[in-house]
Amino acid sequence: MQTTEQVRGILANYASEPPGVKARLAEILSHGKLGGTGKLVILPVDQGIEHGPARSFAINPDGYDPFYHHRLAIEAGLSAYAAPLGQLSVTMGELYGQVPTILKLNHSNSLSRLKEDADQAIFASVDDALRLGATAIGFTIYPGSDRGLEQMEEIGELIREARAVGLPTVLWSYPRGGNISKDGETAIDVVAYAAHLACQLGAHIIKVKLPTEFIEQKEAKAEFEANRIPIATQPERVAEVVRSCFNGRRIVVFSGGAAKGTDAVLADARAVRDGGGNGCIIGRNSFRRPHDEALKLLDTLIRIFKGQE
Amino acid sequence: MQTTEQVRGILANYASEPPGVKARLAEILSHGKLGGTGKLVILPVDQGIEHGPARSFAINPDGYDPFYHHRLAIEAGLSAYAAPLGQLSVTMGELYGQVPTILKLNHSNSLSRLKEDADQAIFASVDDALRLGATAIGFTIYPGSDRGLEQMEEIGELIREARAVGLPTVLWSYPRGGNISKDGETAIDVVAYAAHLACQLGAHIIKVKLPTEFIEQKEAKAEFEANRIPIATQPERVAEVVRSCFNGRRIVVFSGGAAKGTDAVLADARAVRDGGGNGCIIGRNSFRRPHDEALKLLDTLIRIFKGQE
Amino acid sequence: MQTTEQVRGILANYASEPPGVKARLAEILSHGKLGGTGKLVILPVDQGIEHGPARSFAINPDGYDPFYHHRLAIEAGLSAYAAPLGQLSVTMGELYGQVPTILKLNHSNSLSRLKEDADQAIFASVDDALRLGATAIGFTIYPGSDRGLEQMEEIGELIREARAVGLPTVLWSYPRGGNISKDGETAIDVVAYAAHLACQLGAHIIKVKLPTEFIEQKEAKAEFEANRIPIATQPERVAEVVRSCFNGRRIVVFSGGAAKGTDAVLADARAVRDGGGNGCIIGRNSFRRPHDEALKLLDTLIRIFKGQE
Amino acid sequence: MQTTEQVRGILANYASEPPGVKARLAEILSHGKLGGTGKLVILPVDQGIEHGPARSFAINPDGYDPFYHHRLAIEAGLSAYAAPLGQLSVTMGELYGQVPTILKLNHSNSLSRLKEDADQAIFASVDDALRLGATAIGFTIYPGSDRGLEQMEEIGELIREARAVGLPTVLWSYPRGGNISKDGETAIDVVAYAAHLACQLGAHIIKVKLPTEFIEQKEAKAEFEANRIPIATQPERVAEVVRSCFNGRRIVVFSGGAAKGTDAVLADARAVRDGGGNGCIIGRNSFRRPHDEALKLLDTLIRIFKGQE
Amino acid sequence: MQTTEQVRGILANYASEPPGVKARLAEILSHGKLGGTGKLVILPVDQGIEHGPARSFAINPDGYDPFYHHRLAIEAGLSAYAAPLGQLSVTMGELYGQVPTILKLNHSNSLSRLKEDADQAIFASVDDALRLGATAIGFTIYPGSDRGLEQMEEIGELIREARAVGLPTVLWSYPRGGNISKDGETAIDVVAYAAHLACQLGAHIIKVKLPTEFIEQKEAKAEFEANRIPIATQPERVAEVVRSCFNGRRIVVFSGGAAKGTDAVLADARAVRDGGGNGCIIGRNSFRRPHDEALKLLDTLIRIFKGQE
Repeated sequence: MQTTEQVRGILANYASEPPGVKARLAEILSHGKLGGTGKLVILPVDQGIEHGPARSFAINPDGYDPFYHHRLAIEAGLSAYAAPLGQLSVTMGELYGQVPTILKLNHSNSLSRLKEDADQAIFASVDDALRLGATAIGFTIYPGSDRGLEQMEEIGELIREARAVGLPTVLWSYPRGGNISKDGETAIDVVAYAAHLACQLGAHIIKVKLPTEFIEQKEAKAEFEANRIPIATQPERVAEVVRSCFNGRRIVVFSGGAAKGTDAVLADARAVRDGGGNGCIIGRNSFRRPHDEALKLLDTLIRIFKGQE
Repeated sequence: MQTTEQVRGILANYASEPPGVKARLAEILSHGKLGGTGKLVILPVDQGIEHGPARSFAINPDGYDPFYHHRLAIEAGLSAYAAPLGQLSVTMGELYGQVPTILKLNHSNSLSRLKEDADQAIFASVDDALRLGATAIGFTIYPGSDRGLEQMEEIGELIREARAVGLPTVLWSYPRGGNISKDGETAIDVVAYAAHLACQLGAHIIKVKLPTEFIEQKEAKAEFEANRIPIATQPERVAEVVRSCFNGRRIVVFSGGAAKGTDAVLADARAVRDGGGNGCIIGRNSFRRPHDEALKLLDTLIRIFKGQE
Repeated sequence: MQTTEQVRGILANYASEPPGVKARLAEILSHGKLGGTGKLVILPVDQGIEHGPARSFAINPDGYDPFYHHRLAIEAGLSAYAAPLGQLSVTMGELYGQVPTILKLNHSNSLSRLKEDADQAIFASVDDALRLGATAIGFTIYPGSDRGLEQMEEIGELIREARAVGLPTVLWSYPRGGNISKDGETAIDVVAYAAHLACQLGAHIIKVKLPTEFIEQKEAKAEFEANRIPIATQPERVAEVVRSCFNGRRIVVFSGGAAKGTDAVLADARAVRDGGGNGCIIGRNSFRRPHDEALKLLDTLIRIFKGQE
Repeated sequence: MQTTEQVRGILANYASEPPGVKARLAEILSHGKLGGTGKLVILPVDQGIEHGPARSFAINPDGYDPFYHHRLAIEAGLSAYAAPLGQLSVTMGELYGQVPTILKLNHSNSLSRLKEDADQAIFASVDDALRLGATAIGFTIYPGSDRGLEQMEEIGELIREARAVGLPTVLWSYPRGGNISKDGETAIDVVAYAAHLACQLGAHIIKVKLPTEFIEQKEAKAEFEANRIPIATQPERVAEVVRSCFNGRRIVVFSGGAAKGTDAVLADARAVRDGGGNGCIIGRNSFRRPHDEALKLLDTLIRIFKGQE
Repeated sequence: MQTTEQVRGILANYASEPPGVKARLAEILSHGKLGGTGKLVILPVDQGIEHGPARSFAINPDGYDPFYHHRLAIEAGLSAYAAPLGQLSVTMGELYGQVPTILKLNHSNSLSRLKEDADQAIFASVDDALRLGATAIGFTIYPGSDRGLEQMEEIGELIREARAVGLPTVLWSYPRGGNISKDGETAIDVVAYAAHLACQLGAHIIKVKLPTEFIEQKEAKAEFEANRIPIATQPERVAEVVRSCFNGRRIVVFSGGAAKGTDAVLADARAVRDGGGNGCIIGRNSFRRPHDEALKLLDTLIRIFKGQE
């Protein structure tokens, strides 16, 4: 593996991290069709836990099998494949080493009635990631929620633990609960704030949702207006999120959200690219499509991030 | 012990697990009259804790004695015997090595008024399992309940601890509490979801109840209907649960439920077999029957799983 | 110390326990006037904590001094003396080795207003027991109470810790709180259930109150009636408790309860003996009597368990 | 340091304690003007935390400086000086070895609104005591309060930890909260009960308030009356507290309470002496007086305990 | 690095601390334009976490980049730079050794709806401070708040942990919540009390807000009046805070508060100097100003503490 100038440029911002962590980040940045470009497309599959198996996989029943997803990530030449403990336990014994993997450590599920406004259970550990040969750990926090502060403390400890054994952390930062309105969950001020919190917690790759033009907090609104921060277009909003990630010194990727039409998915990707984001994480929009259609979509996404579409 | 092709086929799906865990799974899959077939019949006896001694054993008073159950499992040529700490402490000093044993770690009891909708107390540890020479640990989670997320975290840690010392985990996944209706506890979508959660947590053998045709969650109902998942017959419903266990890549057994007539018990077993399930766990329907009647019933069950009845 | 056939017979049921634990159980079963008979009379003194010093000792002021009780147990030739940390700290430096001692680890007190329906504070540890040269640890659980499940987890861990250093556990199992009625606390079904729970938790000696003919739980009542479990007499009820202790495979002793007349105390003892119980624990009925009267009562109790009265 | 007969007599009651703990107790009992008499006068200064600096020290502004108090204890020839972490951190580097010191580990403060009826925060650890060269640790419990049981568990662990490194424990046992009435906090039955609890927890020196003639608990009242326990005079009440401390086998000292007139302070001391108490702890009544007046008062107290006034 | 007489004078009050801690304190006291004077000006930047990135940095967009702040502290010749984990992770790999750094361990954020009246999440650890080469750790407590006692216990442990590896602690002590009124948060009695608590907890550098003339607690008011503590002017109030910090034996610095006019900032600094405070911590008033204006302001502050303005 030889790192390109783009990859070295990104990793220069991680100078305080130990070599092991930088090596793993380089591995993700150098893998697949986007390898070396500084851009990423990641396949995450944990919807079986989040929504149940039938709701996730019945539409494309091959997806009941963990090998389907792991192989899809390999075939599509993606940057990484993110999955829960059980799923990776099935496939890693055979598919190790063919695509970087992110072991997602915590999960919500829709069977549980929550006692508080949002929560997740921790399914796996840093040791599981090492044992399975994963390249990074993944975790979700809900800033704003009743358990938000506790979750920040949990991930703070896990990041320390993972770093000490050379594993970087991918942090899903999804504002939710508390005083945050439904629209506020994707408001530009809130998404940028959530991305900033993830950076400050020491995460290496930050994952947020694409923000809307809405501004949730009135003190933020005043600053956005007074300082004329441009947020009218999606690329501008992506740029504000990138700026909130230490002025672009941290890798930030955007999620595709609920299943939707191909055009919308591609438009999102172009906005991420044009705003300076590092790429996207695309789950339901890939594995709920038929196999070949999914491969085609993922290829187009990759071409977009290469600037070819 | 020589493993059959069927056993090797099942264990191929556990390729990420350490040899110690696979050896113990092979031990359970190779023991008793069903040894080598890939099918299992397990005797679980913890009803003294769950319902009290008189309610469990007065009907067949030999059952007050822990030796009765342990010997029943041996005589009947079952795959394994699952019991609590105290019970195994009495018998293991004499009966070690005669049938694989599963030390059940946590238990509910009907003397306690629960502060939340469902809970269990942890009676024993992984070290107890090692000390007593048990072949696996057992645990119950209540997905959906107020303590469901915490229980998932508890079992996540116990699975890691047990795996590290070569012990597999049998996970009872019983949806209960929270927003789940009484009918919903055995609804096909809920049971399949609970089985999937158990797989994702890293359990090696999953135990659920036989599902009904009822569908609890309306989003699930939409997917079941849109994708025409067949659930009209019991074998079809078993098949959907098996599919939800990583497309059959995890061992799943079904419980017999409350004491009932022999015909019903046998019909259930045939449905499990025909739907592709790995076997059944049968407690009250065996030890609350007179000794010889129980032996006869268990023998018939075994013949069913051998395809002989 | 040479163990008698009776003692060896009892200890055969503890075959899974390490030699250290069996040696200490043998020590208790072989000590004093009942040594070797398989029967026990134990003096417990923690009422200073439970009810305060004046309420406990003013009636017989020698009792303010910890030496009084410890010496009473020695003089009376009892099987063991159970006491709290502070009390044993005063006497063990001088009286070590003269009577087996049980360090009681947790205590309730009547100065505290409980936030929940019943609770205890842990005063001492397994290390304290080792340091002071105690022969066993003692603990109280309140099955049914709001903290019942947590207490079971606490004692589960302490039993493991004590076993690992060769100390057996005496478990006071007192149903209380939750949905249990006042009469239910000594109902035959509840007491037998509580004794069974203690056995399943791994306790070596179980202590319960003498049960009444009352049945608390209606499902239990149905089983008691359907299966004609005899509970009309005190010995019959003791026998049902013994049966619930793994069919007599665990040592079970009964408490004397509140201070009462000599005849009542002796009648209780005969019932325990006739029902197959292993003995009694008698606190207030001994130390609140004048010294010589207490010695005489204890001697009569011992003669009853020897079958001499 | 040579121990007197009185000191050896007291320490004979601590025969179960390790030599390190006895050596430190001997150090306190042998220091200052009362050295060797078995009596103690201790200066505690933590009112800056309890009530704030101005409320504590403005009246005698030298008291803002931690050296003032530490030196006062030395000059007055007291038995020991008790203070919080921060204060001792300032002075111990210079004044080590000149008077035994007690590092008080926990503190309440009047800035905090308590969520429960009484609570303290733990500021320091046993390791801090060792590092600073303190002679003992100090701790406060509030028996009866909502956190009373937890505090007992906390101090139980700290006593074990301190004992293991040769440090004795001074336990402030102040009944408060829960069902205890304001008058009840100093009722004779409650104070004696609180002192007994402290002894049972394994504390080496017990500190309580001087009790009044009031009896809080009606069951206690019945016993006090039935057994004619004398409590009409302060020395009689002190004697009942001493009796409740294992019949005088534990060192018990009494606090002076709020700032008051010299005559009242001296009368209290005589009552402690005449009732058989081991001495007093006097804070606000010393450091809120001008320096020379404080020295004079402390000297008179010492003379009282020597039987010279 | 050679320490001046002023620095040695200050450090004499830290005689109980280990050499490593004193060396780091000396490092901070000897660095920058105020090096050796015993005075400090510190730049803290954690407002991205507290208020969000746009609200903090949009006005001066260079501030989105962590290098901007770290370099500002270097260029301005400040005593130290305090920042969160993520921010220091970006810059320390390049700027190590150029200005003492304080790793702030905990943070509040305005995205979270608090369940209690005030709280923070711990983002970083003492090990992070060591790994990044920070000179000290920083922490915030909210005395008076519902979690105040717990926070005191948390920081107590962190101070011990940091001290053991040679790191001093800077403690932000901000009274808030509970019964404290809005005016009370900066009342002279409350601020002095909060500073005293920080000292007693073992902090090495205490940071409080500048107090007003208001007195919150009526018992404190009585003492302030009875003992005629002068608090009419800002320097007098600073002096009372200094006195409350062990009569000036601990380093105390004052915060600048919300962004305000230059004259007000300078007046505050003169009051701190004239009242005997050790310096100030100035965040928003520096980094929200344009670069050169900030440098000029900081230089004037430094000249004030040198007595040159």
